[in-house]
This record gives sequence, C-alpha cells and structure tokens, in this order.
Amino acid sequence: MKKTLRIGSLTIGGGAPLRVESMLKTRLHDTEACLAQLQELKKEGCELVRVALPTAELKDCLRTLCERSPLPLMADIHFDPDIAVAAIEAGCPSIRINPGNMGSPQRLTGVVELARDRGVVIRIGANSGSINAEQLRLSGGDRGAALALAVSQQMEMLLSRKFYDVIVSAKSTDIAETLRANVLLNERYGDFPFHVGITESGSGLDGIVKSACGLSRLFAMGIGDTMRVSLSQPPADEVRAAYSILRALDLRQRGGKLISCPTCGRRQLDVADAVPEVREILGSLPDGYTVAVMGCEVNGPREARHAQLGIAGSPNGLVVFREGEIVARIEKGASVIEALRPYLPKKS
Amino acid sequence: MKKTLRIGSLTIGGGAPLRVESMLKTRLHDTEACLAQLQELKKEGCELVRVALPTAELKDCLRTLCERSPLPLMADIHFDPDIAVAAIEAGCPSIRINPGNMGSPQRLTGVVELARDRGVVIRIGANSGSINAEQLRLSGGDRGAALALAVSQQMEMLLSRKFYDVIVSAKSTDIAETLRANVLLNERYGDFPFHVGITESGSGLDGIVKSACGLSRLFAMGIGDTMRVSLSQPPADEVRAAYSILRALDLRQRGGKLISCPTCGRRQLDVADAVPEVREILGSLPDGYTVAVMGCEVNGPREARHAQLGIAGSPNGLVVFREGEIVARIEKGASVIEALRPYLPKKS
Repeated sequence: MKKTLRIGSLTIGGGAPLRVESMLKTRLHDTEACLAQLQELKKEGCELVRVALPTAELKDCLRTLCERSPLPLMADIHFDPDIAVAAIEAGCPSIRINPGNMGSPQRLTGVVELARDRGVVIRIGANSGSINAEQLRLSGGDRGAALALAVSQQMEMLLSRKFYDVIVSAKSTDIAETLRANVLLNERYGDFPFHVGITESGSGLDGIVKSACGLSRLFAMGIGDTMRVSLSQPPADEVRAAYSILRALDLRQRGGKLISCPTCGRRQLDVADAVPEVREILGSLPDGYTVAVMGCEVNGPREARHAQLGIAGSPNGLVVFREGEIVARIEKGASVIEALRPYLPKKS
Repeated sequence: MKKTLRIGSLTIGGGAPLRVESMLKTRLHDTEACLAQLQELKKEGCELVRVALPTAELKDCLRTLCERSPLPLMADIHFDPDIAVAAIEAGCPSIRINPGNMGSPQRLTGVVELARDRGVVIRIGANSGSINAEQLRLSGGDRGAALALAVSQQMEMLLSRKFYDVIVSAKSTDIAETLRANVLLNERYGDFPFHVGITESGSGLDGIVKSACGLSRLFAMGIGDTMRVSLSQPPADEVRAAYSILRALDLRQRGGKLISCPTCGRRQLDVADAVPEVREILGSLPDGYTVAVMGCEVNGPREARHAQLGIAGSPNGLVVFREGEIVARIEKGASVIEALRPYLPKKS
C-alpha cells in the first residue's frame, strides 16, 4: 500500500485523489502579488503550490506567505542546504530539493533532522539538469536511467537516515526519458507518492499536448499521485490543463463534461459556435455530468446517448435529448443555452 | 508485416510514416469553398481528407472535387450502399463506410466488387453510434468490445469476399472504450492499417487534451497508421494538433521544436513573451531542430543542453547557448529573435 503523506491539511498518495499542483510565477518579496496568484490558483482547484526560495534572506517573506496562503506551499530549493533550513524555519510544510545541485550528502543531514522535527515533507525533484556526467556514465548513456539514478542516490540518503516523508519525482522535457525514469523509480520506490510532470513543456498547443501525451502514459502505468502541467503561461492555465487531462482520463472530475461532434457536411447546427456557450455552463454542473453538442439529429442523439443531456441541429431548429431520447423540439431561432436550460441539473 | 495501402499517391501502413487526416467542414456543393479548405489543409501538412457524401445526387460535385483536389479524398458514406457506389463512380480513391448503418451484407456486395475493380480503399469506420443492441448484448455490455464486434462483422464480410484493401477504425468519445476496441481489433486484424482517433473530442483545451491522452496510449501500443484529431474547430486546427502530438511523441517532425521552462521567481527573461516570438520561426527550421527558451542562466543552458540552440535570461541581458555551451552574451535591450538569428540554421 502506498504511503499517505500530509502537507498542511492536504493528503497525497494512499487513497487520495490525484492532486493538482502549480508554481507561483510572482516573486516572493511581492507578498500581495503572490497572494493574488494563490487565490486565483485556489479558485481553479489547485491544491499545492510551489514557490522558489532563491536565497535564505527571503525567509521572512516565505514565513508571511505561509501564514497567509489559502493553499499549502512547497519551497523550491536549489544549490544550498542552508536555504532549505531557512524554508523549514519559516514554517513551510514541504520543500523540494533538486538532487543535482545540493552538494554533499553530509550537508543535507541538518535539513533532514529539522524536517523530521517539524513534520515537513521533502520532495526529491530531479529533472534533466540534475544529471551529472558520472550518473550518465554509470547508466551507459541512458538519460532516463541516469535521471532515476540521481533520484535514487538522494532517496537512499534520506532513507538511510530513516526519513520516510518523501515524494519522488523525475521529470524531463522528453516524454520517453520521463517514462523510463519513472518506471525504474516506481519499481524501487513504488510505496512512496510520486509527483509527475513533463518539465518545460512549452506553451500553447505544444505545451499542453506534450503534458497530456506524457501524463496519460504515466497514469496508465499507475504512476502519479500529484501532478503539475508545466507551461510557460499563467499558473492558472496549468491547473485548468491538469483538470482537463484528469477529466479526459476519467481520473477526476471537476464540473460537467462536454462532448461535441467534429461536424461534417450534414450538420444543421453550428457546433463551433455552440460549444463555447455550453462550455460556459460546465462549471455550474455536477462533477462528471456530460452534455453533448451534435451537428445533426440523424446521428447526434444516438452517437451521444451516453450523455446525460444533449442538443442537436434539426431541419426545423434544435432537438434536445436526454440519454439518447429526444425530449424537446425547438423551432429555429432559440439559443442553444435557452433550449438546454429547462433540462439542466443543479450542481450537487 | 503490416499491409501497405495506396490512396492516390499516398501510402498508408507498412513502413509509411503515421499519416495525418482531417475532414472538410464545407459543403460538397460549394466546390470553391471545399478547394480553399483543401489548400489550407495541404499547407498545414494534411495528407488525406474525408468529405461527407450525404446523397448520391452530389456525385458530380464529388467528381469535380476529386479532379481538382490537391490532396487525396475519402468519401464518408452512411445509410446507403448506393451512395458508396456513387462515390466510387465519381472517381473517389477511398470511401469510409459505417458498419452501424449500411444495411444488409448483401447490399454491400456491389460496393465491394466495384471498389476492387477501381482499386478503391475501404475504411470500416465505426464509432459509438455504430453499435446495435445485439452487439452490446453479445459483448456482455462491454461497449469497447461491442465496438470491436461491429467492425469485425463488417471486416469479415469484406474478407470473405477476398477484399483486402481495408483500413480498420473504431473510435469512441471515451478513451478507455477506444483503447479496448482497438486492442481487440489489433489482435485480430493487426496486419491491416489502422486509422485512429478519439471521436467528438470537443474543442479548445479539452478537445486537444482528450485526443492527445488517447492517441498517446494507442501509439504506445503500436496501434495507428493514420490519424485524425477530431475537433469542433476549423480542420486546419486538427492538423496542427495532430502534428503537435506526433512531435511530442517523437513520431514525426514538422519544423523545429520549442522547449521552454515554466519560469519561477528566479527568471531573468520573460519566457511567456519570448515563446510566441520563437514559435513564429519554428516552421523555417529543419525538422526536429530544438530551440530552448529558459528563464535564467543558472539552470537554463544545463537543463536545456539537449537543445541545438537556446536562449536564457542573465543579470545583464541574454545568453545564447548551443548544446549547453554559452556562445554569446548579449546586453539588455536586444530582442530574443535578434539574439538567436546569427546562430539559426536554414531549413534542410
């Protein structure tokens, strides 16, 4: 059974749902900007937020943020164990350390002891940049295996000190490399929660596609207890993309689901126009409730009979259907939303 | 060895690359609108285009389009074998028939004989709407298995008539159902090319994510010779999304690749601003050439050392790096593209 960890009131691993993370893009010394971004993230359903702590001098800023944050935080630490100590002293409930640049194992002992005292969770978070030449050589040039090795070395350091509140993570910009590292780590550390993602995914279409392709494969292997979709975009976009992936794979629902036909020469409803209107109301629907927008009455109700509610074009206007059965015919001129409204459920 | 089929000058299956398809959303009687959409699709890299032939009366429109189309066409036929006959007589090199609504096997015999005479490829294209109650009962309520059964029954009809120029396809709006149907069909008909996709994916973020999640899983199992990303959007968007998926999975390249870091409090370059600028030049780069846009000099060049070329923020401006090595330092004020330009390769 996978270990369950607790960061503030948030549970990760064990029987908990797959958690959605993001990272602040605001600077830590700008507390108000950070809090505004945290509020926005919370509204989108984000559950844990990473924040870079570049120097120990920003300790007080981190303390203030931890006290006022509406979401649990994870301090992102590079280069210096003293910064990790500062993060824990600031009251941060979790830290992420990069095994590639934390110096000698000895220097981390203080961090581990302090984390244990304060009940702080440590994520070992490696990425392509964490690999050194020696690890690559030992892995015979296999970058995925080298990434797993970088994490393993740090894991062993923690486990040898009987520190077990650990989240494992290995990310690459390359999907195959990320999969390889995670499969290897899962064989060895499968009892610990895994944080997953494709790092530096880019932005826009390519960024989302890369994360979706990679995460879909990881989840299919049962790997992933907490996730981040890394995008070069506002962090709220990362959270929306994460829920979109979880929804597509039926792993977690948030609001209603929309299906629509791609349309063809047979269509009698402008699906492309109707879809954005229907998407607007998804948030107000019960989790997992499915609405279909179909171009024609001929195929629509039948193809979308698994939808709780649907609308299709007809020669005379619109038909509304519930689980494949037509429940109303509406003459030309009515809006799609007005046609659907009498049949919409309330959010449970 | 998988069979290679030919539609016009296009090869599918065997050793051919994974092909990218779309479907016209214009109406067949509007030849000029169809041709404009076909030109746009060709420009994006589309290789085969489906077009709905709703009635046999539109046969001459289809003939004109086949004669003038810059891309091979596939006529989409429902309900009536006579329409399939009309499509073949119009000179269309391939047809898609939906096993759910083509009537008795006897009525299809004429279609098969004519297709054989003319060297026409037939795609058996089933979707959730193709399943009938009997198939669902025989499959014990397993919708994925019922979908596979619907395709199998039609496949057997063709194979028993010694017709082998067949593309297999089974799509559902549900990823798990699509995977299940394809795995079953692949066990039985793995020697034939498979067309894959998630049907009625929706539009925008959710549509793309659903296709990416599902197709990534199918491709991981080696299933898929030709693909469509179904979106309730202009068909060119479908093609762009398809190549984005193929690029993410390193299955097929088209132009350069962009990676960018998600940025954090350490950034010294506004990555979100720089990324769209760099994306503009990707089309002019050799296939697979990777450009990195990284927030900071500290992590950037190292994390992105697998990129052929990269740019990162530095306290004094920008650094340009090639395969992890800094090749230029550029003072504040220069644009990202101007900084990269001297180092960019030409398209091969």
